[in-house]
Amino acid sequence: MNLLLLSDEHFLSPTTASISGYQFQHLKQVHKAEIGDTVKVGRINGNIGEGKIIEIHADHALMDLHLSITPPQPIPITLILALPRPKMLKRILQTIATIGVKHVFLINSYRVEKSYWHSPLLHEDKIRENLILGLEQGIDTILPVITTKKRFKPFVEDELPAISENSRVIVGHPKASVPCPQNLTEPVTLIIGPEGGFIPYEIDLLCANGAESFNLGPRILRVEQAIPALVYRLLADQALSIG
Amino acid sequence: MNLLLLSDEHFLSPTTASISGYQFQHLKQVHKAEIGDTVKVGRINGNIGEGKIIEIHADHALMDLHLSITPPQPIPITLILALPRPKMLKRILQTIATIGVKHVFLINSYRVEKSYWHSPLLHEDKIRENLILGLEQGIDTILPVITTKKRFKPFVEDELPAISENSRVIVGHPKASVPCPQNLTEPVTLIIGPEGGFIPYEIDLLCANGAESFNLGPRILRVEQAIPALVYRLLADQALSIG
Repeated sequence: MNLLLLSDEHFLSPTTASISGYQFQHLKQVHKAEIGDTVKVGRINGNIGEGKIIEIHADHALMDLHLSITPPQPIPITLILALPRPKMLKRILQTIATIGVKHVFLINSYRVEKSYWHSPLLHEDKIRENLILGLEQGIDTILPVITTKKRFKPFVEDELPAISENSRVIVGHPKASVPCPQNLTEPVTLIIGPEGGFIPYEIDLLCANGAESFNLGPRILRVEQAIPALVYRLLADQALSIG
Repeated sequence: MNLLLLSDEHFLSPTTASISGYQFQHLKQVHKAEIGDTVKVGRINGNIGEGKIIEIHADHALMDLHLSITPPQPIPITLILALPRPKMLKRILQTIATIGVKHVFLINSYRVEKSYWHSPLLHEDKIRENLILGLEQGIDTILPVITTKKRFKPFVEDELPAISENSRVIVGHPKASVPCPQNLTEPVTLIIGPEGGFIPYEIDLLCANGAESFNLGPRILRVEQAIPALVYRLLADQALSIG
């Protein structure tokens, strides 16, 4: 945790917050925090700054906050992801938040098993919990917006064109002959398939609706590896706030 | 598992292998394999090809093998990594193998806790097990070589210059003002610090021994995210066999 990310319910006043739960445990056990210490703090969808510990109790601490730094610029990528296996979803949500992607559609695909849609990890509060963990790692405050779409064809035909308007739409596909683009500065809609990949019908439908397919070399990465690999390969320095 | 990776002990003859353990379970449960089916198979440090199932027993199967395809070209990166927390090490070893890095040094650093060096995951057979899982994901056969170095200063001063000879030596450092290089075709020695980063003394010593520091933007990635992000950002298409 590189940032303690607070939501509205933590705030007792605009400059005072009460920290409990895993964040309080982290303060005590990792930071060995004592009264007077300061830690990096952010407010969900707000600023970043410092929190000074003013009281420590058995199960919570009080902090004085000074939040004056704006969070890093979002990554200009909308991510469309075939719903991952529940086991992977948690880490993938954290990765998305850490990297700075703010708009994500979890979609159906032939190789997405129906049972994945019933995972408790898709409950709103579980999604939020993992996004917050990811933001705390990446030192950001802006919660990504995760939308689920359970029908592939209507999504691609009826919604993708509007979602991806004014962006470069690309889909990873091991059999594509075009190499992954680089140094992009314009907005990107990045589509990543399920384990085993999209089936040819799905690739064809995506390409008929504005997507270009590309390859990332012979190695098949896991989704949680492919997301950082693709985001950092596709974008120019300025889009990643590098340098 | 995108490849069934076999070691010498699986081979009954140069073209016949016996599959048991988790690989047999995967064949039965995921591939629902039957006699006559073929699956993608590789031999550790050898070729890739097809295995045809010729017998299925209670706890093993026999395969006829035809291995004629050479594995993908290694990634021209030597990775020097501050020893990660045991909890992360397993996934990091898998990631390294999946991505195609073949030479890794796990080193000490001020922020590496002493207890990490006693993790059972550092036992040779556990390292090998996780590397094989990573290679099976990435469809590769060449086992990475993992070396541990428990003393930072002697490693950097006495060994790094020889290890990194004829390569570009770079170290990720959030405070560096130089952006992460791109499109490299020459060999790279990539140095990644622990959670919390290298301390200034360590960065200085690395830079005094040939390393350049660079930044990857404001977001702090986990090591298992930083490895794919950096490898795919640093290298040119040809070094990644893309296109």
